[in-house]
Amino acid sequence: MSDRMTIRPANTKDHDAMWRIFQAVVATGTTYVFAPDTRREDGLAYFIGPGIASWVAEDEGRVVGMYKLLPNRRDLASHVANASFMVDPSHAGRGVGKALGLHCLREARRAGFLAMQFNFVVSTNTPAVTLWKKLGFQIVGTLPKAFRHSERGLVDVYVMYRFLDDIELET
Amino acid sequence: MSDRMTIRPANTKDHDAMWRIFQAVVATGTTYVFAPDTRREDGLAYFIGPGIASWVAEDEGRVVGMYKLLPNRRDLASHVANASFMVDPSHAGRGVGKALGLHCLREARRAGFLAMQFNFVVSTNTPAVTLWKKLGFQIVGTLPKAFRHSERGLVDVYVMYRFLDDIELET
Repeated sequence: MSDRMTIRPANTKDHDAMWRIFQAVVATGTTYVFAPDTRREDGLAYFIGPGIASWVAEDEGRVVGMYKLLPNRRDLASHVANASFMVDPSHAGRGVGKALGLHCLREARRAGFLAMQFNFVVSTNTPAVTLWKKLGFQIVGTLPKAFRHSERGLVDVYVMYRFLDDIELET
Repeated sequence: MSDRMTIRPANTKDHDAMWRIFQAVVATGTTYVFAPDTRREDGLAYFIGPGIASWVAEDEGRVVGMYKLLPNRRDLASHVANASFMVDPSHAGRGVGKALGLHCLREARRAGFLAMQFNFVVSTNTPAVTLWKKLGFQIVGTLPKAFRHSERGLVDVYVMYRFLDDIELET
């Protein structure tokens, strides 16, 4: 991540880059439920659509990560946000995920959500679990053997949760 | 529930009855996320659609309950089933929910699912929590204040889970 990294709303010109990142992330079969042969329309529909706020991280003119923010459920549970993140594997370890996570928490707070829930954090995805703990999330549930990991077989999945009342809206 | 109660696949002739039950259940704002003014098309789409197995309980010619069974997630998590149940409030306490639950567990096992997950059991919905525990489910997660209960305000929600390997497929 360079000083020139910015996080901005996604637009239609980003679709090719988003799809490239989506494919690279799901190719491993280790962190997301999507099969490696997921179709482009399904991948993009996961990140873009009505009621979904879609953001991308741009580093020196190149889209290197993205997130989506939406209500986890409708109506009587719509005060809890959900979000998903993907970072270009070739940009891993440079703080892109953390920057997106912090941005997302502020956007969620700004939008009036009271909490954020991650429904499906694969327990063996240590970078993700570590990052979300660092950003204040707690493991509130463990789904035994809920993910078919491409290398390890059936592994546990965490549900992670955090209230947003301590998130500051500095600009 | 009478001896003449049967559980059979839902068909288009059941839609009016299913919508009547849906409305009666969500009217209280105490057990499901749907607002009382949810539209018919949304209510029916929740129970009926591609990839969803939809069943109804019929008691002496009247539809008194229903459930849906589907994969909780796609692809690398599609071995875990999800299900939702609604019973006509005027038939509560007669064993309809239990009969539907047992039927659903067998159908899920028959379909090859390895486990079943309930994503959103409102903690104050004691009849549901008690029934699912009786049918072998465990609370594997607690989502703090994730439901806006119409009478009690923000209350916790349980994630409940159960493996299916002990479910017998007797006819």
